[in-house]
Amino acid sequence: MNKANLQPLKGFRDFYPEQMKFRNFLFGQIRKISQLFGYEEYEGPTLEPVEIYTAKTDEELIKNQTFILKDKNDNNLAMRPELTPTLARMVAAKQNELNFPLRWFSIGPRWRYEQPQKGRFREFWQWDLDLIGENSLKADTEIIIIAAELLKSLGLSPDQVMIKINNRRFLEKQLKKVGLTKEKINLVYKITDKKDKMKEDEWEKYLKENIGQELAKKIKSILNKKSFSNFPELSELFALLKKTDIAQYVEFDSTIVRGLDYYTDMVFEARDVKNEFRTIIGGGRYDNLVSLLGGQKITGVGFAAGDAVLEEVLKKFNLLPNLKENKKILITVFNESLADKSFELSQKLRKDGIANELYLKLERIDKQIKYADKKGIKYVIILGPDEIKDKKVTIKDLTTGRQSTVALNKINKFFFL
Amino acid sequence: MNKANLQPLKGFRDFYPEQMKFRNFLFGQIRKISQLFGYEEYEGPTLEPVEIYTAKTDEELIKNQTFILKDKNDNNLAMRPELTPTLARMVAAKQNELNFPLRWFSIGPRWRYEQPQKGRFREFWQWDLDLIGENSLKADTEIIIIAAELLKSLGLSPDQVMIKINNRRFLEKQLKKVGLTKEKINLVYKITDKKDKMKEDEWEKYLKENIGQELAKKIKSILNKKSFSNFPELSELFALLKKTDIAQYVEFDSTIVRGLDYYTDMVFEARDVKNEFRTIIGGGRYDNLVSLLGGQKITGVGFAAGDAVLEEVLKKFNLLPNLKENKKILITVFNESLADKSFELSQKLRKDGIANELYLKLERIDKQIKYADKKGIKYVIILGPDEIKDKKVTIKDLTTGRQSTVALNKINKFFFL
Repeated sequence: MNKANLQPLKGFRDFYPEQMKFRNFLFGQIRKISQLFGYEEYEGPTLEPVEIYTAKTDEELIKNQTFILKDKNDNNLAMRPELTPTLARMVAAKQNELNFPLRWFSIGPRWRYEQPQKGRFREFWQWDLDLIGENSLKADTEIIIIAAELLKSLGLSPDQVMIKINNRRFLEKQLKKVGLTKEKINLVYKITDKKDKMKEDEWEKYLKENIGQELAKKIKSILNKKSFSNFPELSELFALLKKTDIAQYVEFDSTIVRGLDYYTDMVFEARDVKNEFRTIIGGGRYDNLVSLLGGQKITGVGFAAGDAVLEEVLKKFNLLPNLKENKKILITVFNESLADKSFELSQKLRKDGIANELYLKLERIDKQIKYADKKGIKYVIILGPDEIKDKKVTIKDLTTGRQSTVALNKINKFFFL
Repeated sequence: MNKANLQPLKGFRDFYPEQMKFRNFLFGQIRKISQLFGYEEYEGPTLEPVEIYTAKTDEELIKNQTFILKDKNDNNLAMRPELTPTLARMVAAKQNELNFPLRWFSIGPRWRYEQPQKGRFREFWQWDLDLIGENSLKADTEIIIIAAELLKSLGLSPDQVMIKINNRRFLEKQLKKVGLTKEKINLVYKITDKKDKMKEDEWEKYLKENIGQELAKKIKSILNKKSFSNFPELSELFALLKKTDIAQYVEFDSTIVRGLDYYTDMVFEARDVKNEFRTIIGGGRYDNLVSLLGGQKITGVGFAAGDAVLEEVLKKFNLLPNLKENKKILITVFNESLADKSFELSQKLRKDGIANELYLKLERIDKQIKYADKKGIKYVIILGPDEIKDKKVTIKDLTTGRQSTVALNKINKFFFL
């Protein structure tokens, strides 16, 4: 293999320990917030029969943007482009045993065969969170609060990101009024979902070509509305949200529709206020998803958020956390006859829950210290003949240069401070 | 879709919250132990070009047991059946920047298109741990200690599981002595690796057919040896291991060879002592893997362990942990006018890091308690008019039936006890 082939496939990522630290930090935040609200983690298979997507998801997504393979019986299997159909299948399969409402979340890989660009990979990780079997606006409120709490916990403020909320029934009512059929309305959703991904005039042309000049004008005027009126579901939802301490993060936006077919009522997107990035978190209420998969009709509300956009947004606002672990320890080896002592100390500390790395080669101490320094290790422990005689160790703090002599039975105390 | 289709694909698993709890527990133990030894987490892509496997892995694995798909340019991509070739690629790609030795581990999905059976799925999760760039027997020792520490931490004792150790060079030396060529030796490795998956007489027939009656007899006598002699690498390794507190977990076994082509020296397998299950943890030293992928030659030693076998073995020895969380809280809603108070309390507790679930429907308190009970929630908080007047809450412990009245400003203390 030549050097070029040492790279991962286009749109796929290698996570070296440095990148992995950020990922573990992000997933840690996500787990913490999901669990604070009583949500339980679940996971589904990464491969599903293609049919579970075709009825419910954007057709384009399945035809052109999904990694498909054939099983040995020539059936088409999809590497899941999203998790919601799997969730609906899992709920339908145990509908009579489960104790509703379900509060479930998941973090796992998804695949889309798209052109990679900033914040968009072919393999990415997604947080899905859903509240199933509860149709009140309080459920919508809870979901939106959770989304906002994640943004808050990452340090994002309302002058950087906002959660933009709309309602498909509200939009539908207006679109029907100007004479659109149900079929055309679904088309308008798809076209509208592309609005922020295209140039203004390109998008207008695209709308006109598909809907006609006359209707296009009316649709534009509907999408330009800055407020809603006479739609209780929206006014009540905002009344609930305005009482919470994430009130500053939410606003009405008539252009939010979401691309997926299964949303029926409230829809929302967290976006950066300058619209430089793709959707950070997107979701809404779906009334028929479980029944489409063979279960009884049950309503749900939820959202998904991809890791790559979140990372890009944090980078842009200079909010990437400093993930340097400053407790790392290297235990050096003084010489061959004392190697056992270093090994024993290393094992003893591990038993007490103190992580440490043991130097394995017999090399000069300064070389061992150099290795620790390069690796960002803070503490180096030296155990030479003098130390052993006095039942002590020398601990060198590489970040300050300070050197301490610590009794063997006081090491734990030293590191737990 | 009919009911039958509500199941995951054959060999794939749905992880409902109950199953997910075990998975998170297991991965938590794995992360804890890896990190105690100073190992850093990494992850690679799940899809790789098929070529990175064909040179190094068992050919059968790639031809018949791998999920392959074609990209839009008709290249074959494999859903990774194992992680080691990806690790070698990642190391080769940054060989000049990385600070050796590397202590790396990973936990992620792998796929094998095999016949599912107990402890074997088509989609499973695997722990990989490797120490790269260190050729001393101390490195082999460290790797084996880590494997044993995981078994220990899960409650498995040496009368249930053992780590069986061998050395390919030792075996090679003996096989050469009886007249086998290098090529035949590789064939013997593959045949030997199947020994515990077949019936005794079937396996003997299989060996004879491939190697000839005369040689088969000699090979059997080599594989039957209960001890090694005149092989310093093995005697020194055991001398090192016998000084540790996992000494009881290790033994020599002349039949251990591992199936993968890339192992060169020490090889080992953790097995249940009655050989009822597949390999629990398997690994060894590989000298040429990184160079096969275009990097400079560098030695490594490591292992992999699948989630499904571990779970089966724990089940068999009755060691599955009780993962019921006994701190779960439900905040009930007394009536419509007091709903805000419950919501505020719920948010306040979350701010203080106390996870809780808020009941969203307006229903009778006994119905809300019944829901909590079914869901395994321990504490139910009631906030009625009396409680609000007295700035208190009623906390019902569903596991004991005990009911306490707690001042609003003492709730945190109650739950942190």
